[in-house]
Amino acid sequence: MAGHEAGRSGDMAGHEAGRSGDMAGHEHAHRLGWLGTGRMGAEMARRLLAAGCDLAVYNRSPAKAEPLVRLGTKPVVTAAELAARDIVFITVGSSDDLISAILGRHGLMSAYGMAPRVLVDCSTVSPEASARVRAEIADRGTSLLAAPVMGNPKVVRAGKMTAAVSGPRDAYLTAEPYLTMLGRGVTYVGEGELARMVKLCHNLFLGVVAQSLAEITVLAEKSGISREAFLACLNKSVMGSLFTGYKAPAYVNLDFEPTFTATLLRKDFDLGLAAAREHEVPMPVAAIVHQIIQGLVGRGYGDADFAALLQQQAESAGLTLVSEHADVSDGLNTNE
Amino acid sequence: MAGHEAGRSGDMAGHEAGRSGDMAGHEHAHRLGWLGTGRMGAEMARRLLAAGCDLAVYNRSPAKAEPLVRLGTKPVVTAAELAARDIVFITVGSSDDLISAILGRHGLMSAYGMAPRVLVDCSTVSPEASARVRAEIADRGTSLLAAPVMGNPKVVRAGKMTAAVSGPRDAYLTAEPYLTMLGRGVTYVGEGELARMVKLCHNLFLGVVAQSLAEITVLAEKSGISREAFLACLNKSVMGSLFTGYKAPAYVNLDFEPTFTATLLRKDFDLGLAAAREHEVPMPVAAIVHQIIQGLVGRGYGDADFAALLQQQAESAGLTLVSEHADVSDGLNTNE
Amino acid sequence: MAGHEAGRSGDMAGHEAGRSGDMAGHEHAHRLGWLGTGRMGAEMARRLLAAGCDLAVYNRSPAKAEPLVRLGTKPVVTAAELAARDIVFITVGSSDDLISAILGRHGLMSAYGMAPRVLVDCSTVSPEASARVRAEIADRGTSLLAAPVMGNPKVVRAGKMTAAVSGPRDAYLTAEPYLTMLGRGVTYVGEGELARMVKLCHNLFLGVVAQSLAEITVLAEKSGISREAFLACLNKSVMGSLFTGYKAPAYVNLDFEPTFTATLLRKDFDLGLAAAREHEVPMPVAAIVHQIIQGLVGRGYGDADFAALLQQQAESAGLTLVSEHADVSDGLNTNE
Amino acid sequence: MAGHEAGRSGDMAGHEAGRSGDMAGHEHAHRLGWLGTGRMGAEMARRLLAAGCDLAVYNRSPAKAEPLVRLGTKPVVTAAELAARDIVFITVGSSDDLISAILGRHGLMSAYGMAPRVLVDCSTVSPEASARVRAEIADRGTSLLAAPVMGNPKVVRAGKMTAAVSGPRDAYLTAEPYLTMLGRGVTYVGEGELARMVKLCHNLFLGVVAQSLAEITVLAEKSGISREAFLACLNKSVMGSLFTGYKAPAYVNLDFEPTFTATLLRKDFDLGLAAAREHEVPMPVAAIVHQIIQGLVGRGYGDADFAALLQQQAESAGLTLVSEHADVSDGLNTNE
Repeated sequence: MAGHEAGRSGDMAGHEAGRSGDMAGHEHAHRLGWLGTGRMGAEMARRLLAAGCDLAVYNRSPAKAEPLVRLGTKPVVTAAELAARDIVFITVGSSDDLISAILGRHGLMSAYGMAPRVLVDCSTVSPEASARVRAEIADRGTSLLAAPVMGNPKVVRAGKMTAAVSGPRDAYLTAEPYLTMLGRGVTYVGEGELARMVKLCHNLFLGVVAQSLAEITVLAEKSGISREAFLACLNKSVMGSLFTGYKAPAYVNLDFEPTFTATLLRKDFDLGLAAAREHEVPMPVAAIVHQIIQGLVGRGYGDADFAALLQQQAESAGLTLVSEHADVSDGLNTNE
Repeated sequence: MAGHEAGRSGDMAGHEAGRSGDMAGHEHAHRLGWLGTGRMGAEMARRLLAAGCDLAVYNRSPAKAEPLVRLGTKPVVTAAELAARDIVFITVGSSDDLISAILGRHGLMSAYGMAPRVLVDCSTVSPEASARVRAEIADRGTSLLAAPVMGNPKVVRAGKMTAAVSGPRDAYLTAEPYLTMLGRGVTYVGEGELARMVKLCHNLFLGVVAQSLAEITVLAEKSGISREAFLACLNKSVMGSLFTGYKAPAYVNLDFEPTFTATLLRKDFDLGLAAAREHEVPMPVAAIVHQIIQGLVGRGYGDADFAALLQQQAESAGLTLVSEHADVSDGLNTNE
Repeated sequence: MAGHEAGRSGDMAGHEAGRSGDMAGHEHAHRLGWLGTGRMGAEMARRLLAAGCDLAVYNRSPAKAEPLVRLGTKPVVTAAELAARDIVFITVGSSDDLISAILGRHGLMSAYGMAPRVLVDCSTVSPEASARVRAEIADRGTSLLAAPVMGNPKVVRAGKMTAAVSGPRDAYLTAEPYLTMLGRGVTYVGEGELARMVKLCHNLFLGVVAQSLAEITVLAEKSGISREAFLACLNKSVMGSLFTGYKAPAYVNLDFEPTFTATLLRKDFDLGLAAAREHEVPMPVAAIVHQIIQGLVGRGYGDADFAALLQQQAESAGLTLVSEHADVSDGLNTNE
Repeated sequence: MAGHEAGRSGDMAGHEAGRSGDMAGHEHAHRLGWLGTGRMGAEMARRLLAAGCDLAVYNRSPAKAEPLVRLGTKPVVTAAELAARDIVFITVGSSDDLISAILGRHGLMSAYGMAPRVLVDCSTVSPEASARVRAEIADRGTSLLAAPVMGNPKVVRAGKMTAAVSGPRDAYLTAEPYLTMLGRGVTYVGEGELARMVKLCHNLFLGVVAQSLAEITVLAEKSGISREAFLACLNKSVMGSLFTGYKAPAYVNLDFEPTFTATLLRKDFDLGLAAAREHEVPMPVAAIVHQIIQGLVGRGYGDADFAALLQQQAESAGLTLVSEHADVSDGLNTNE
């Protein structure tokens, strides 16, 4: 199965969707909608507006949509009004929200005789909820793309988010130019809910990297190297990623203000390891990290950012951490 | 302890060494030498030449130095002849090689009344060997910088290597402009052999990342996603690093031609975990990966590239891997 | 919550149920039944007969009950006929079997106006199935005890099985004298399905011990010590248990004829770790063993005895195992 | 290589050394010595006295030997005076003590023209120290047996210790009747220092079992089962060992008064894992337990009994432990 790439690294796989001139006309050929403009949704919608797209937005509480309206988008009063749009992007908070926003009484699919061609769900919802929506809208001629996003709102704002996309290939080709505008490009990974598996794998990896980073940072510190110097070096090395870069301020200055809580990360490990069990794939490293995260929750860090893994690691090494009060960049706003 | 940064990400910490004009004169102010021009050394030396430095090179077998000579460097016949240089970079194969090249009969320090001001050892040698050299050259007024390199020859060629540097701070300041020319910049991490600890931490991290990547790639594949699509997506995400990028061809096309063997990685884990034990730092994830690498060696993959972790992982998941024969970039030659 | 002990180690907790004279009359005071006389059930029922109990047995295929009939038990033709008994022990193969045998059309509870006072379920069934039975029989005045057995048929035959028991305390006191006859004594652990949790914990421990035994046995062998000598010594030491004793023949002579398959052990780890997750208890060692067992299944040993963990461990240590063809006792028939 | 068994389980392997009548004469045929009568040595020597042996004892501080003198042993004033004995048992505190007691100025081998035939070293010393002693005494015609003991003083007193023995086979046959008197029997495992490897394996196993026990005990407790009831049940089951029995009081009543500290257990894991590395045996479970023990030390429990693993496990599960103040037997004084 060949991956289908879009975006800056588009040369890595078959199909390519650039931002070249002949695409420009195409980009304006579709009428777009956005359902759910929380922090993530607002940042993403803003990028479509900046690219000159025709965009209507709906949010349960209209106040949250206002900043986008000031940028030129058209507000609508019910989700159903988005039915006239060709492609509707969705960023809602939960599986239940997805079902009620799409299939509910005044939901997107409730308008008589009218429905978008493609829905692009960028939320993190259960495969079951997604599959149910997919099935129920199919006979209305509407396709669902699962497009879970990798990155937080700051990453989106910096133009560095990506997404895995799965669902009908023709629906993907329709939506691809707009998906490409959202960040660093997206990857088509196949039919159905496969993109959600990619997201789970991504988050397992993120947890493992965070814990390994905690281990080596504490080792470096006990050896006499400041966390700032150590992480600066690591981030400049081939091992450095946007992720290890934007977690550096937390690890250096001990800011555990949550971007993603330990409890939420545990949830993703629950799901990821359950998927691994279903597919009969042993995951020795992910499994041990799962237990370490459970320990973090048990020790009372459940509502802290998962970067508190550093704190737990230091405690078990007999090291008392203090903030280095260093001026560490999160690396998101470089032009690299 | 504040990190001291040089290079493109120099804004991350205090001192900065740019490539700006006023530095250009400085760059040409020192006479440089290079001792040991194997694959790594040759690529690194080439970068100094390209920047217009005055460079003399020595290699035990002169043939290996020839390509550099053609590029304009001055060959010398004995290591001792490099004694007239201000700064000498060293890339040798082992601790014993280091000691004999520096302290031996015709070694660098054997010239009467003459010695470089600074030696920069970019090799991977033991802290003991390094400390011995450091001590013996000190009374000759020569300082040793430990500057273990993070990256392989292809990474160097792409201009993306980095190094942690430790030793006397004034020696560092002298060598910094040239170190900066070698790649993406370097980080000063403190006195003595501290840079070697950074390298060990880096390699522990590399092993953990490689194993975690193997786990999630096999999970993705058993779920129905091609390795190519999966890794393309991951590499485009915030988790993607140069490392995960340049290992993608190996994971996709099963090319386990060694860049770094499983046995060598085990050695780094031996050293890294011994250092952790000495500093009383528990390393649960690194320790389990150590054992997994030992298993890889036990199953006969000791001389294969450590990317064979993917093979071992697939076997334990009941999955038979076949090459995807995909045209996957290693990501090193982008301008990103 | 105080444990309630019965049997030979009765002195370890409050209540004691010996085999002393004044209990003898009591033992014969109840009419007993046995539902399901597979390998485990037959061995257990045989012990009640040997102690002189009044016992009726039912098995779906009557042939399996015949050996017990020859020993003096009364066969019955439907499960319903056991309704006239005071206490009925149950050993069936699955949750569904339990439900149909008790609540089904001709099941134990189908007799009009008649039901045993106490059911003692010694099967390994789900807590859900057990709870359903418990609830449905309660209004008939019948109590259910969960009494999952720890030990295999050979252990039962040797008089060395035990069981955790949970359910109404008065029902326990009624059944205790007979439970005590089944082996080394039982332990009352509380209300409801708690005994099933004990069984899960027991089996997690069993898997961890089996893997650790594999690790150290291979280490000893690669050091030059025969498995026979090593395990003889370990079994004689304070670490030796009946379990490590009766697995010795398998580890020494590589007899992986299943007593309990790797797939079944994985199932118990699935359940045990799910319970740990529910109770928010990190289980680092059990989790890693879970993944090792998954690897064993993935490598094709799913239907072999879980002692094949030794084989997997040897392979990863580069060791080819051969049977030692030694005359090793399983330790079950000693009088210790 | 066939194990050579002696003692009660002697039927498990070839050679047997019982306590039968015809052996009695033999037992008194040798003149025995004991060097070092600390807690372990005193308990062991007492058993030889009780069996009627002719025993002389030496201890650096004579006061410690007095209780044995009152039981009929002959005190000597220097280690050298034990040279007239046929077989001398040794229980000293460290490798240095061994070397000075045997090879030192007034050591056992310092007497002119006289030396025991066999030394039996029951201490825990390094293989290097042992090998040195072995080599130096060989040309005096004296053989060394390594016989590290498995069990603590209470285990010895209860008659339940065992030992692995290695060294020259004829020396073993000479010493065997007396070794058998020390506890449950010993096992001959081969030449040289092999017995020390058995001890390391034993202690790795002990650590793994202690941690697994901590995990399941906390799981059981959070499910609603008292530690007392849970451990009573486990100890009655096939998984119960003398070890799990005699740790029960610590786990139930939280008595972490050290019998063996976490720091000492870590030391054995250091050695055991180093041996595994040398023999290229991956030890995934032992390695993770090693790190968990390191964490225990890092959290300040280094001088507590290793049973504090339970405490650490409870903390990571968010459970506050309180003593159950239960009357739990350590199981050592049963006649089982």
